[in-house]
Amino acid sequence: MIRMSSSFVRTLREDPSDAEVASHKLLVRAGYIRRSAPGVYTWLPLGLRVMRKVEQIVREEQDAIGGNELLFSALQPREPYEATGRWEEYGPTLFRLKDRKQADYLLAPTHEEMFTLAVKDLFNSYKDLPVMLYQIQTKYRDEARPRAGLLRVREFIMKDAYSFDIDDAGLDASYFKQRGAYQRTFERLGLPTVICQADAGAMGGSRSEEFLHPTPIGEDTFVVSEGGYAANVEAVTTVVPEALPEDRIAQLPAAHVEDTPGASTIAKLTDFSNEAFPGKGYVTESGEWTRFEMLKHLVYLLTHPDGTTEPLVIALPGDREVDDKRLEVAVAPAIATAFTEEDFAKHPVLKKGYIGPEGLGLGAPSKIRYVVDPRVVPGTRWVAGAGAKDKHVYDLVFGRDFTADGTIEAAEVRDGDPAPDGSGPMRLTRGMEMGHIFQLGRKYAEALDLRVLDENGKSAVVTMGSYGIGVTRAVAAIAELHHDEKGLTWPRAVAPADVHVLATGKDQSVFDEADRIARDLEAQGLEVLYDDRPKVSPGVKFKDSELLGLPTTVVVGRGLAEGKVEIRDRASGEVAEVSPQEVVDLVVRAVRA
Amino acid sequence: MIRMSSSFVRTLREDPSDAEVASHKLLVRAGYIRRSAPGVYTWLPLGLRVMRKVEQIVREEQDAIGGNELLFSALQPREPYEATGRWEEYGPTLFRLKDRKQADYLLAPTHEEMFTLAVKDLFNSYKDLPVMLYQIQTKYRDEARPRAGLLRVREFIMKDAYSFDIDDAGLDASYFKQRGAYQRTFERLGLPTVICQADAGAMGGSRSEEFLHPTPIGEDTFVVSEGGYAANVEAVTTVVPEALPEDRIAQLPAAHVEDTPGASTIAKLTDFSNEAFPGKGYVTESGEWTRFEMLKHLVYLLTHPDGTTEPLVIALPGDREVDDKRLEVAVAPAIATAFTEEDFAKHPVLKKGYIGPEGLGLGAPSKIRYVVDPRVVPGTRWVAGAGAKDKHVYDLVFGRDFTADGTIEAAEVRDGDPAPDGSGPMRLTRGMEMGHIFQLGRKYAEALDLRVLDENGKSAVVTMGSYGIGVTRAVAAIAELHHDEKGLTWPRAVAPADVHVLATGKDQSVFDEADRIARDLEAQGLEVLYDDRPKVSPGVKFKDSELLGLPTTVVVGRGLAEGKVEIRDRASGEVAEVSPQEVVDLVVRAVRA
Repeated sequence: MIRMSSSFVRTLREDPSDAEVASHKLLVRAGYIRRSAPGVYTWLPLGLRVMRKVEQIVREEQDAIGGNELLFSALQPREPYEATGRWEEYGPTLFRLKDRKQADYLLAPTHEEMFTLAVKDLFNSYKDLPVMLYQIQTKYRDEARPRAGLLRVREFIMKDAYSFDIDDAGLDASYFKQRGAYQRTFERLGLPTVICQADAGAMGGSRSEEFLHPTPIGEDTFVVSEGGYAANVEAVTTVVPEALPEDRIAQLPAAHVEDTPGASTIAKLTDFSNEAFPGKGYVTESGEWTRFEMLKHLVYLLTHPDGTTEPLVIALPGDREVDDKRLEVAVAPAIATAFTEEDFAKHPVLKKGYIGPEGLGLGAPSKIRYVVDPRVVPGTRWVAGAGAKDKHVYDLVFGRDFTADGTIEAAEVRDGDPAPDGSGPMRLTRGMEMGHIFQLGRKYAEALDLRVLDENGKSAVVTMGSYGIGVTRAVAAIAELHHDEKGLTWPRAVAPADVHVLATGKDQSVFDEADRIARDLEAQGLEVLYDDRPKVSPGVKFKDSELLGLPTTVVVGRGLAEGKVEIRDRASGEVAEVSPQEVVDLVVRAVRA
Repeated sequence: MIRMSSSFVRTLREDPSDAEVASHKLLVRAGYIRRSAPGVYTWLPLGLRVMRKVEQIVREEQDAIGGNELLFSALQPREPYEATGRWEEYGPTLFRLKDRKQADYLLAPTHEEMFTLAVKDLFNSYKDLPVMLYQIQTKYRDEARPRAGLLRVREFIMKDAYSFDIDDAGLDASYFKQRGAYQRTFERLGLPTVICQADAGAMGGSRSEEFLHPTPIGEDTFVVSEGGYAANVEAVTTVVPEALPEDRIAQLPAAHVEDTPGASTIAKLTDFSNEAFPGKGYVTESGEWTRFEMLKHLVYLLTHPDGTTEPLVIALPGDREVDDKRLEVAVAPAIATAFTEEDFAKHPVLKKGYIGPEGLGLGAPSKIRYVVDPRVVPGTRWVAGAGAKDKHVYDLVFGRDFTADGTIEAAEVRDGDPAPDGSGPMRLTRGMEMGHIFQLGRKYAEALDLRVLDENGKSAVVTMGSYGIGVTRAVAAIAELHHDEKGLTWPRAVAPADVHVLATGKDQSVFDEADRIARDLEAQGLEVLYDDRPKVSPGVKFKDSELLGLPTTVVVGRGLAEGKVEIRDRASGEVAEVSPQEVVDLVVRAVRA
């Protein structure tokens, strides 16, 4: 039993000044967490209890699929991370430090390397596989902009699991075991999630899905179609129109340069076209020109991992913007930055504002890398810059008048775009990544030489899967989902205690009876938070109780004289007056329901 | 149930090459832990289970005395540690790092500062006190020489608790609550401990006791007397002989310088004295000279925290050496190093090899700091160097012929020395520090301005106690105490599982029956490790079982055909043949006994 009179439980009257989201405000105000440095939090007693319950649910579901729990140090030597390239790749997000002998160490952001080496250390035969390992452990990432309380932090608790299999079929089986475990975990945590196809990003690999919890404060954007398609926007592939056959292309009018005075933007060019060449548009029934046909050219500087750079020209329909995250994924491991004036100066062939395929000397060999949106297929007609001021080319046909070095999935995804699997139009939604499962494949095993003898006695590289759940973030997401204007409203599975008993009043009899009820509830195996503070007003106790948000509250107060105590349900607000004799049974039944 | 066929449990045949102590060898060989960097370990599944059980026992006893569990980050900003001086004081033992903004951080070795700030943050009245806070958390210390497996590491799990009281009586009460909790904790862990008076060392404060576990591999030396006195050698005070009254001193023979050719060591000087002046010794009945009377002078260079240095001459009976640890404590916060040739050159008054009180010009003012062993009391007679080659002074009387700037507790403590409390002769023992409780007092509260309003509405500085248990080290100590030549022999309270079921044999019936027994044991609430590996010989299974060291083993094998299975008690080696029908009940009874 936690007696509030002698415990380290204190609520605050004011919201923390730096809080942007409800979970942050409420977790701090209710005394669940406190900030100790930017993105670093202290877990106060009630917060720690919630976090441990989340942890335990995650643990049970991992154990249920045969997970072996172990625990790696946060402090790890540089070498394994050097071997896989992550020492460098992580950049400033990695906390690095030196020991007294000037040896390099890091605070691990994840432990792929260490798990791989552990298996290499103890296993040597296909008979040892498959094996599923996991830990629930504190991770470190030096985020540039920690924010939103527990949602983007620099120290956090995460469950990271890894599967080790001899072949791809085994990896698939392990993957789907974890997928099921994740569904059960989030179900128990009371967190609705959508399983989205994800890009594996820096991790590499093949099958990759994120468990996104739909919430307006989410940092991820994902799409869902009515037919059940769901994907992170980074993973959405564009539905590609059919290309025209060559004989049809041959029948299209020839490209022609036109004077387009003042048409320096897509919008102006569209207006100009409608005025100068009404009814000649390529895609609408009416022949009205749309921004779509105005082929937009954007120039980026690509920086490759080896430090070399090159320009990249992206052509996309004029009604689409580039989505920075999709671009990032599309060009990885290179990094794309918008071309600067200086960059343009170095590449005079790129005439800022008038770039078009003509201007690039396409047809003749070009050294500039030129990629197009997947909607630009052979036979599509476009209007584009002619490489000179106030000139545009019309009837420019892809596959006839210009070609490209490839396509790129960098254009924004829009509400209503068709899902790639034909399941209908997609809806854009914001979500928070709660879990991520993906097939690493042999990347880490190869880098660290994890091999076992296969059935034929031959050395085989092991294939791995990686499965993460943010425990800390789950606490915040649950708080975000389960609160009202008065405070938190914890689901039973993760509440810091089962029941909150309030002694409200001055009479000793009230305290005696509240005491007895609290003890009896505890004797029944319930976790009890007992507000036994002697000189605190009923109003303050009620307010605190609403802020703390335990699912059930028992109020012992004025009504006691008439043989009544109250049971309050925090989430529904329902109040039941019952006799002190029956209260324990009723509460036990409610908690176990 | 942990099925060995699909779990990450592997034993090694060879001892690790770097292992010095049994716990290290066995914990590694049995697959409980693995080293990932010097002084940094990975907890493999069975090791993690043991560690969590130790943790849980520690937690329960903290909760039982009203402890509030919370959790601080290992990563903490420099400022609070700067305010208390520990950022500097910890020297190279502190892991320091910078974040991406070049702000200074550390990996906390303990969290006094953060606990103090947490209370300051949430409390403001004496009514809030007392409060007891604790965490079980990962700590970092960059030890110069990590060794002995889990015994001296750079990353470890520790329970650190802090009490906060308004006055000294409150602090005493909190202190004794923890003292009791520690006794119960170590009792439950199966670790005998001796409560020793300890020097508080760098922590400052008053009442201070260590819980030392007697073991030959311990790094601490402590003393116990038959009468119950126990102390760390650093804390032992010398029993001081009675001083002679002044009138008796006046009757002693006058000091006289004698030629002592070749008597350049204490041993030679003693022999010389016995030859040249037989029967004239000061302390034995027979008048034989002993090394005791030959007053030894040792010179050190003291370096003060502000960087200034000065020589320190220590005089002690010739039969005693200086104990470096006692000296360290005696001169703290200064640091003493032995005088070098260079130092002697800078202080010509100190004639190496012939130093005595005469040579220091004592009587006349001396600038050299000169301290004596507490046994050097007024009226004691000594032989000492006369400040010139081959000359010694005899009948040199302290308080008449020379005085000192003070006494120092730097001489070694010896087996048989009398206990300071008169409880008889002391015995020297080696021990391992398992816990440390001490009264910090107001040091941290003052440094960080932790004040509350007292009963009279006046601002009062809070007084604190600090209480630590090394969880990681406890695991090692238990393993060290509970093993035999075949492997580990865990006590039930901390064993990784309650029972180890072995299916030994090739018949399917053996596996079926072992399966049933394992499942029935689990259904009874027992934790079961089940060796279901199909192609592993009985010999290997027995050896592994002995190495892993679970308290009870059930062997299902050849005897099954005759209706017999075996229950083996790992610690006693007892084997009972029982029927498969009764085995579950018997094991449950043994485990719950």
